[in-house]
Amino acid sequence: MKKKVRVFINDNKYFIKFIYALIVLNVLTLILESYKELNDNYGLFFYSFEIFSVAIFTIEYLLRIWVSDKTKEDKKERLNFAFSTLGIIDLIAIIPFYLPFIFPFDLRIVRILRLFRLLRIFKLSRYSKSLKTIQYIFRETKAELSITVFVTFVLMILSSTLMYYIEHDAQPEKFASIGDAVWWAVATLTTVGYGDVYPVTALGKILSGIIALIGIGFVALPTGIISSAFIEKIQAEKKSKKGKKVKNKECCPTCGKNL
Amino acid sequence: MKKKVRVFINDNKYFIKFIYALIVLNVLTLILESYKELNDNYGLFFYSFEIFSVAIFTIEYLLRIWVSDKTKEDKKERLNFAFSTLGIIDLIAIIPFYLPFIFPFDLRIVRILRLFRLLRIFKLSRYSKSLKTIQYIFRETKAELSITVFVTFVLMILSSTLMYYIEHDAQPEKFASIGDAVWWAVATLTTVGYGDVYPVTALGKILSGIIALIGIGFVALPTGIISSAFIEKIQAEKKSKKGKKVKNKECCPTCGKNL
Amino acid sequence: MKKKVRVFINDNKYFIKFIYALIVLNVLTLILESYKELNDNYGLFFYSFEIFSVAIFTIEYLLRIWVSDKTKEDKKERLNFAFSTLGIIDLIAIIPFYLPFIFPFDLRIVRILRLFRLLRIFKLSRYSKSLKTIQYIFRETKAELSITVFVTFVLMILSSTLMYYIEHDAQPEKFASIGDAVWWAVATLTTVGYGDVYPVTALGKILSGIIALIGIGFVALPTGIISSAFIEKIQAEKKSKKGKKVKNKECCPTCGKNL
Amino acid sequence: MKKKVRVFINDNKYFIKFIYALIVLNVLTLILESYKELNDNYGLFFYSFEIFSVAIFTIEYLLRIWVSDKTKEDKKERLNFAFSTLGIIDLIAIIPFYLPFIFPFDLRIVRILRLFRLLRIFKLSRYSKSLKTIQYIFRETKAELSITVFVTFVLMILSSTLMYYIEHDAQPEKFASIGDAVWWAVATLTTVGYGDVYPVTALGKILSGIIALIGIGFVALPTGIISSAFIEKIQAEKKSKKGKKVKNKECCPTCGKNL
Repeated sequence: MKKKVRVFINDNKYFIKFIYALIVLNVLTLILESYKELNDNYGLFFYSFEIFSVAIFTIEYLLRIWVSDKTKEDKKERLNFAFSTLGIIDLIAIIPFYLPFIFPFDLRIVRILRLFRLLRIFKLSRYSKSLKTIQYIFRETKAELSITVFVTFVLMILSSTLMYYIEHDAQPEKFASIGDAVWWAVATLTTVGYGDVYPVTALGKILSGIIALIGIGFVALPTGIISSAFIEKIQAEKKSKKGKKVKNKECCPTCGKNL
Repeated sequence: MKKKVRVFINDNKYFIKFIYALIVLNVLTLILESYKELNDNYGLFFYSFEIFSVAIFTIEYLLRIWVSDKTKEDKKERLNFAFSTLGIIDLIAIIPFYLPFIFPFDLRIVRILRLFRLLRIFKLSRYSKSLKTIQYIFRETKAELSITVFVTFVLMILSSTLMYYIEHDAQPEKFASIGDAVWWAVATLTTVGYGDVYPVTALGKILSGIIALIGIGFVALPTGIISSAFIEKIQAEKKSKKGKKVKNKECCPTCGKNL
Repeated sequence: MKKKVRVFINDNKYFIKFIYALIVLNVLTLILESYKELNDNYGLFFYSFEIFSVAIFTIEYLLRIWVSDKTKEDKKERLNFAFSTLGIIDLIAIIPFYLPFIFPFDLRIVRILRLFRLLRIFKLSRYSKSLKTIQYIFRETKAELSITVFVTFVLMILSSTLMYYIEHDAQPEKFASIGDAVWWAVATLTTVGYGDVYPVTALGKILSGIIALIGIGFVALPTGIISSAFIEKIQAEKKSKKGKKVKNKECCPTCGKNL
Repeated sequence: MKKKVRVFINDNKYFIKFIYALIVLNVLTLILESYKELNDNYGLFFYSFEIFSVAIFTIEYLLRIWVSDKTKEDKKERLNFAFSTLGIIDLIAIIPFYLPFIFPFDLRIVRILRLFRLLRIFKLSRYSKSLKTIQYIFRETKAELSITVFVTFVLMILSSTLMYYIEHDAQPEKFASIGDAVWWAVATLTTVGYGDVYPVTALGKILSGIIALIGIGFVALPTGIISSAFIEKIQAEKKSKKGKKVKNKECCPTCGKNL
């Protein structure tokens, strides 16, 4: 029977689609709840749906733990699942609902716990290759990323401190501290440019212009590296698919190379 | 005679250029009409031109249907054309003009129907390779796009919800709901940064900075993939042109490689 | 003697540097003149420098025409130079100074003529490979650019018209016409986002978000194509330099390939 | 004994980590000091930490000079170190602290000298490959960068001057001089778009749109070149690591190519 359950929760198309839909509906509910008029009118419905979702997710979690021992009643394999990324995500998806019943939290913490429902979105990762691809890319580009992140960090500190010293007297409120100047640096070097903070002195504008022209390229490096690693990985997968078909088709009799 | 008409509407240089110019003028008229002073003074002229255009496009459409049967009076081929992308575009370009005469719509709907004239711009697609290239690229990069669009979607939901919880108390009007926070996330992660919504709390700024630095790279991935697919396709076309000339020119007798 | 002059104005290091400096100083003067206080105090100096520059450039232009016939007193070669890009640039650099003396222009036109001094910056192109590279790149990528520019154009018209119809009622002043909506589209799709125009209605924000996420990639295509063409050209030049050194070093005796 | 010291300051893991931490803490202190309330309360602590840091850095600097002669008491090698990039950085990190004791500066200059503490961040470069990589990249792409920087410069001057002439009458304060227009050009062409300066006239908007669509691509070229050089360098390093393993493994007896 355990085997049947295992197959059901792992491979049954309808069950997978049901969980998938439930996750998406949970995220949708979280968004809709944030609209005051909707929450006032449908608050009870939202709460009922929350209880229903948690019930389903709890049963799913318990079943997954129960069937995680493939050989026999083996506690080790069950612990392995419980402490795997997917197991922890499944737990985090339900535990914040139960905590306030166990510990008498004040309202502030309950509200933050409600935010944890958002993490249910990561339950989608079981059915998606995306997260694995991203994990792989971060592992592959670790060395490059650390260099460029370091340079970005130094650039931000340097330009923030300089701009703070230049603009502080002219705009004591907007450049109140180097922390505020870092906010300016982020907005500028990512080219978002909200327009809430910008230099007003001549020197500040000149320096800001030079920093923008030089810095944007460096700050774009980490994202550029991730992007190119992503594209490369995808192309490599494509080739390997094509490669299997092409292999051993034509081949130089002397050197064995494909023609 | 039908053959003559077919050749005329498909291959006659002057007719093609005339339709081309008529489409461009239609789009231009649509833009000019939106200027109140122009519409007040030249409204009659714009309406006359509209009638003239619809007349031409209607005749063109009827002729295209008439000549679409290449073998003989065959209804099947005519239906094929009528339900092809180009046929539907041709129909949509004229039908909104006739609808108000048939059904007594109220003014609101008539106004929306007028907007459909904009779709006449797609009639240009008959003479352009652009749309085919774009279609091809979307088909080719479907797998990659779906992964990155999914990641972008998750990133947007996550950062919007977080920012809503952080900023809602400080800016209850600008971050009134998660929907408003999504608007912030779009403006930030695409680096447009209008400056109508931005975090004001310290925690909001720190999180927003981290989200911006990380998120922009991911959100740029789909556009990056489309771009690189576009460039690759163009280069492949170039090579295939050159390749035809080079092929079978010189070849190593041992390994068969081109020299 | 003509040969001496030709060598002098084309190859003399000090003369080239002098002209180079004069051009840069001219551009600098143009910028400094725009500061009211500087123009009030040093107006006479700026005018004297202008007369001096025009005198030098005029002499240079006349000499270049005089020495442009390499074989003998040949009017054809002189006309060739006069109508070459460089010749026309040299003429445009000086002619606006003389025109007001010949024709009694009103002040408005004189002011516009003064702006033509800016074009002297293109005299630098004689000594720079940049413009040639750019010309080459535009010629190479003409086909790709025309497709993407067409798509960009259609995208801008479509999104502008849609946004005009959606936002006109809510913001009759900012979206007064489709022309104003185009200004919004440019600011959004280039991700500049000044923040002077942005949608305020819910529908407008949703559509604007979708347009931004999709459109930015397409609008970035022409610039992406120019960039990649530029980088490719530079790398090709590097390889051809290295290639010359490597060539004929080691070579497979059978197929003649470099090892 | 000198040898022991040399090994200690160059290779001792704990000493390196200590200096590393001290530099990071120095930068952190600099940032925290800028918060008025923190500086009022912990000013004495910050000053004590500054004295402690300078003491350590001074001892480190003197030791480095002392042990910089590897052969014997050789003044030449010591001078070599003192005038090397790392030596100068080490000196700049401490000298601004001592200067006010030697020369009676006024407060303004003392404040600027305090800013020099920021340069201590470059002491990290001893332990980081980042700066070397960046130096290498700038040397490699010098030719390409100079072309694109020149084009960017010309583009900025041209668009600034044009916008100044167009917008000056409509916005005499925001486009007070070409210098102000350059600030607009930087904000637009880097796509930062703070929103403090933007064209308001119809002609200004049209021109600004065209400049934005064309210019952004060119201004992104230098950053694009640096980015691609960076990525190429990293990939080359990866290949050379793999290459060492692969080398001389298998080789076609006819053409000598690796299989």
